[in-house]
Amino acid sequence: MIVPRIIERKRDGGRISEVEWKELITAYTAGDVPDYQMSALLMAVFFRGLDGEETYALTDSMLATGSVLDLAHLSIPRIDKHSTGGVGDKVSLVIAPLIASLGIAVPMMSGRGLGHTGGTLDKLESIPGFRTDLSLDRARAQIEKIGCALIGQTGEIAPADRKLYALRDTSATVEAVPLIAASIMSKKLAEGLTGLVLDIKRGSGSFITDEKSELALARAMIDLGARRNCPTIALFTAMDRPLGFACGNSLEVIESIAALRGNGPDDLMKVTYALAAEMLFLAGKVSKPDDAWPMLRQAIASGQALEKFAEIIDAQGGDRRVTDDPRRLETAPYHGEYTAPRTGYITRVSPRVVGHGIISLGGGRRTMDDDIDPAVGFVIPVKPGDHVETGEPLGTIHARDQRGLAVGRKALSEAIFIADSPVAPLDLISHRVTAAGRDKWKAPPE
Amino acid sequence: MIVPRIIERKRDGGRISEVEWKELITAYTAGDVPDYQMSALLMAVFFRGLDGEETYALTDSMLATGSVLDLAHLSIPRIDKHSTGGVGDKVSLVIAPLIASLGIAVPMMSGRGLGHTGGTLDKLESIPGFRTDLSLDRARAQIEKIGCALIGQTGEIAPADRKLYALRDTSATVEAVPLIAASIMSKKLAEGLTGLVLDIKRGSGSFITDEKSELALARAMIDLGARRNCPTIALFTAMDRPLGFACGNSLEVIESIAALRGNGPDDLMKVTYALAAEMLFLAGKVSKPDDAWPMLRQAIASGQALEKFAEIIDAQGGDRRVTDDPRRLETAPYHGEYTAPRTGYITRVSPRVVGHGIISLGGGRRTMDDDIDPAVGFVIPVKPGDHVETGEPLGTIHARDQRGLAVGRKALSEAIFIADSPVAPLDLISHRVTAAGRDKWKAPPE
Repeated sequence: MIVPRIIERKRDGGRISEVEWKELITAYTAGDVPDYQMSALLMAVFFRGLDGEETYALTDSMLATGSVLDLAHLSIPRIDKHSTGGVGDKVSLVIAPLIASLGIAVPMMSGRGLGHTGGTLDKLESIPGFRTDLSLDRARAQIEKIGCALIGQTGEIAPADRKLYALRDTSATVEAVPLIAASIMSKKLAEGLTGLVLDIKRGSGSFITDEKSELALARAMIDLGARRNCPTIALFTAMDRPLGFACGNSLEVIESIAALRGNGPDDLMKVTYALAAEMLFLAGKVSKPDDAWPMLRQAIASGQALEKFAEIIDAQGGDRRVTDDPRRLETAPYHGEYTAPRTGYITRVSPRVVGHGIISLGGGRRTMDDDIDPAVGFVIPVKPGDHVETGEPLGTIHARDQRGLAVGRKALSEAIFIADSPVAPLDLISHRVTAAGRDKWKAPPE
Repeated sequence: MIVPRIIERKRDGGRISEVEWKELITAYTAGDVPDYQMSALLMAVFFRGLDGEETYALTDSMLATGSVLDLAHLSIPRIDKHSTGGVGDKVSLVIAPLIASLGIAVPMMSGRGLGHTGGTLDKLESIPGFRTDLSLDRARAQIEKIGCALIGQTGEIAPADRKLYALRDTSATVEAVPLIAASIMSKKLAEGLTGLVLDIKRGSGSFITDEKSELALARAMIDLGARRNCPTIALFTAMDRPLGFACGNSLEVIESIAALRGNGPDDLMKVTYALAAEMLFLAGKVSKPDDAWPMLRQAIASGQALEKFAEIIDAQGGDRRVTDDPRRLETAPYHGEYTAPRTGYITRVSPRVVGHGIISLGGGRRTMDDDIDPAVGFVIPVKPGDHVETGEPLGTIHARDQRGLAVGRKALSEAIFIADSPVAPLDLISHRVTAAGRDKWKAPPE
């Protein structure tokens, strides 16, 4: 294998064979191919793309550098949900216990906050005592016992992905569809799943903002799932505004607990039910996703979903009492209101500006080594399309100090736009994509 | 300066400012920007290109990382010739003493063999004792005294280029027009020239094989020269066959000495005279290049050009007697003929195959650390268009051993094609490009 010739071939629009991908990724992970060759190759891939075979060979090679969660001995379906990342997106915290409470295994491996987006691990770690750094053995044991584990990517899983991801982040090669697909799926396919539901975020707050790339990403991941016997379905959901009201780690856990009690914001509940319905469909619990909604509502109403969350928290070292008393989560000492500077329609609540605002408050990372303050953030109860009057509260800032209140107020003033006439926001859930094709998503009849 | 944002901007088709280039190249040379970011940026440049301002900012930044040959105190013109690289191209060895013998300073900094092409330094070093590793101070003193120095790129000249070139070579980013232009010109502009002539090689044996890129490269370098008060003219010459007959280090020195005696192969003499005429024109010695040809022929006929070569060899520690007795150069112990397998017209003598053949004989490098055998190579007296009869000699192999003869014979059998009817080769010299535009090149009236 002569690496410069391989880079050259990709650069000039050619293919890299399955054997070459395997050698390349193995050698790169072992340190035998230098970063400067890999980053040049990744940039060539950014421009030239990868075909389906190549994307699969890359994914499979990355997967093969690590261990997998072997759950094949479980007789129950094993289904996970993955989101491409957003602001206020706490669906994982609600959906994992909800689905596990219905007798389906949910081996969920999540990430940390990245850029302007929040991360499930950071949110979970705002629960006192909660550990996300379980070994694969311990995670397997927990899944066998209670049907769910919420963990981080361990060093055991796809080490090639960790190394490649850090390189992409510093070499401006993050936004390449086949690389995103391979990175996500090399981890998800290590979870030993029988099905996967993808939440592809659309709009200004998502990493990929053009429709063509969104669809290409969904198709690439569905194709990768199919090649590994992991049927995969994607929903396109709106990230032109934060999901739910709470944005910030503790605040999102509090909102998740409310959602598990049936008191979540409408948009959060709808996205959660829609994704959960696809999980039940893939698990074979229903013959079409619409049929799952009553089961899901019942699992919430009965308290079994919340009880499952308490069990998971307990199993992972956390204080399960937070599910009864969310005030046990750390809260910020300073609260301030941001009010409408004028009367009109909300035309925009920018997830990027809100996300960067959380970072400014200390609730997110600028570099991977930063500590985060779990208590700070925003609660923004307004949505694009709402009519508001001058002086009406648009959001609450939760800050560590007085300065934070000012920083937070400035962020909200830049995130929230008001105009004389309403502007149509994106559909909350717009499309459903399966191996068979893409359809407009329709809410089930009430 | 946040490097990933700069890479991203170039990747997405934007510009890098003069200040950013300066910071980037300075930091890269100092080791403060890692190779993996630079290689990703270079690959983005491969796809997106650089505009004239950016190419100049890059070149100037590279130049500024090192010293320059300060020759401004010399009252005579200072002109160099640079070729984009080929096989059998020994023009530098002939043209440098020829021009210096006419009272023009020739501060010539050359390179080593690269890929399938030969390098002037390697050829010169086949002369016993010849040193090319002069310091800039010593080169300056030699130029003051005898009007010419033939040296390698010292660590003092554009260290950024050395580092970038090594990176490009291993990351498949060599073939990008603005990077080639910046690399060449950052060195040439360090020579303190008052004029520069470029020999842009065309055809299968050149690094850039499409007409659009050839012209873009010529124009980029002419533009860079103009921005630094170094008027630059380019000729396009044929590299769809080796230049002259000899290919290999000692063999090419022998042919260069013959050329300086007026006995060089026609094509070598014609290309040498054409480039030399442009040098005299840029030096202001003639009002149009055609007028220079008689002066050049006279400088050869009088022996003054050969005497200048002897002076240069002597000044650089070499054995000047080789100019009288080329047998003082190391020769290969094994010689063998390759003869025409059929009657017909020569349609092709592939420079790439010949160049790789020299490498196989030990006369070129596979990696920069390889030693080379100066004695081995080929003498190929036939050219595309020639009619040959079965059994007629097409080339001589000069090898270190019996095995080399077989290797060389195989290379020639793969390099030389014979067919029933002739195929038109490229024009030996096709175009002349100046700041004013491109014209068909015409030979001067006899």
